[in-house]
Amino acid sequence: MAGGRGTRFWPRSRKARSKQVLPVLGEASLLQQTYTRLRPLVEPERFLVITNGHLREEIARQLPEVPAAQVIAEPVARNTAPCIGLAARILLARDPEAVMGVFPADHVIAQEEEFRGVLREGIGLAEGGNLVVLGIEPRWPETGYGYIEFEGERVQGFREKPDQATAEEFVRRGNFYWNSGMFLWKASVIDAAIRRHLPHTAAALDRDDFPDCDSISIDYAVMEKASNIAGIRCPEFGWNDVGSWNAVYELMAGAKGANVARSEARFHDAAGCYVDAPGKVVAVVGLDDVIVVETPDALLVVRRDRAQQVGEVVKKLEQEGREELL
Amino acid sequence: MAGGRGTRFWPRSRKARSKQVLPVLGEASLLQQTYTRLRPLVEPERFLVITNGHLREEIARQLPEVPAAQVIAEPVARNTAPCIGLAARILLARDPEAVMGVFPADHVIAQEEEFRGVLREGIGLAEGGNLVVLGIEPRWPETGYGYIEFEGERVQGFREKPDQATAEEFVRRGNFYWNSGMFLWKASVIDAAIRRHLPHTAAALDRDDFPDCDSISIDYAVMEKASNIAGIRCPEFGWNDVGSWNAVYELMAGAKGANVARSEARFHDAAGCYVDAPGKVVAVVGLDDVIVVETPDALLVVRRDRAQQVGEVVKKLEQEGREELL
Repeated sequence: MAGGRGTRFWPRSRKARSKQVLPVLGEASLLQQTYTRLRPLVEPERFLVITNGHLREEIARQLPEVPAAQVIAEPVARNTAPCIGLAARILLARDPEAVMGVFPADHVIAQEEEFRGVLREGIGLAEGGNLVVLGIEPRWPETGYGYIEFEGERVQGFREKPDQATAEEFVRRGNFYWNSGMFLWKASVIDAAIRRHLPHTAAALDRDDFPDCDSISIDYAVMEKASNIAGIRCPEFGWNDVGSWNAVYELMAGAKGANVARSEARFHDAAGCYVDAPGKVVAVVGLDDVIVVETPDALLVVRRDRAQQVGEVVKKLEQEGREELL
Repeated sequence: MAGGRGTRFWPRSRKARSKQVLPVLGEASLLQQTYTRLRPLVEPERFLVITNGHLREEIARQLPEVPAAQVIAEPVARNTAPCIGLAARILLARDPEAVMGVFPADHVIAQEEEFRGVLREGIGLAEGGNLVVLGIEPRWPETGYGYIEFEGERVQGFREKPDQATAEEFVRRGNFYWNSGMFLWKASVIDAAIRRHLPHTAAALDRDDFPDCDSISIDYAVMEKASNIAGIRCPEFGWNDVGSWNAVYELMAGAKGANVARSEARFHDAAGCYVDAPGKVVAVVGLDDVIVVETPDALLVVRRDRAQQVGEVVKKLEQEGREELL
């Protein structure tokens, strides 16, 4: 799944240069890192990338080994359930027994071998007819993720994004895991589940009318309702959904309070800062915990703990019709 | 006097584009504003600008009415006493009775007519043989200026830059005024004072050996020692020496906490900020009291109350031989 906007990575991210196709960490884009991470398990001709019209060409360029016809642009954005339903139909036509893995293209995972070990386990569970979801042990009481409630190894239920107090309670109780948005299942099994729990969308897919699909997440539409769920309480493998520039900072900073410079920078009496302004010398003086990101036409200066708010800047520019900055 | 470096205005200021030739406030440069402010009192052919080799050409360009031969580059920087001594010699050669005013080229004055009123008064005192210095009523306990101690209308003495406690005591006592660095005197009178109090420099000037002059300020070399001093306790005329980007912010901000944008800027949950990045949209998110100044090759992000430290960045770049940034 590579259709997101990634507006919180403005000004670096734009409609045609969204987060997943950017090298926000390291030299390769997040999409390319996702591909490389899965490649030891899957041949290139068995990758399917669902994205949007702005990104299709760039994604095909970044993944030359993947057949270009398997980089598919949705005509409109309709959240994850229709995206997954469409992919399942395409795979089923090729192989009625296909096992399908669903991976957001913009996450990072530090320990790849541990991750692939979990996938091998999950593939087994999927072959047995389960809808498999990967749960991540929470490292802090995040309010931006959904949670999976476990009872032993069994999934008891799904919980929507909680408020702060609830998130803290989840972390305290220890049997609540972050819903990573990564799934494994047989294409036939998820297709049947969508037909059952989301019949209007299934019918729209039957008649190739993607825009008529419900705009709804797979979690809400299917996972919260199905009974054949298998959750995996993943061992630590350094998962991060790289949700903002602050996440990039934290993934790159070696130590607490370290400054991170991705271009030439001078820090005078500054700590915890992140600078990314190619071709320019940046001096940060007397400031802590500030992020500076520059492009030829725009500059962002944001306090690290407000990096989530960057999307609001983009929303405002959108309302004003500033297409050249989107 | 237009020879300063103005390193605290980096990255906008460079050796050949120093503070005084930049439009740091309004459309005209500080130098042009100084010229325009004095012009009602003095014909163009009676202006003399002493600067350095980096700026001479640009200054001549900015003041086309002033004869180019009267824009003079010192071969080396030697503080204010030799600069003033040299100017006095040049004026004396043209008119032994000349009254000379000395003005830094990088100050602003809001109420120009009030200012010129003071100058008219000062010219009278200068014609009477006095060394006239303009004192500014202190608006805060500044530690970066020298002070003039008055006893009634009489100058009791000069005080070097004080520490914080002393500065506060000066402001409390009410008879201490900031030394503005603006002077009026007959060229013959200051020349005689330099010959008396700074004989080595006078001798160096006699033999056209400017580099051999003492590097010393006129305050320290002459004003603190001479007896024929007349100080003027100036009425408020909005004097500001524009010592840093923070001073620019304060001169431009209409109200406390206002944001000032000299180029297109978006402030989200931000207050008291200053943005100057021509041709670029700048978004400031979740930050207060931050200054952002950009040029094609450099970017400064500094907390407003640390704007004085910007010179340290330049010193560091200088030590590293980064000539292209100086």
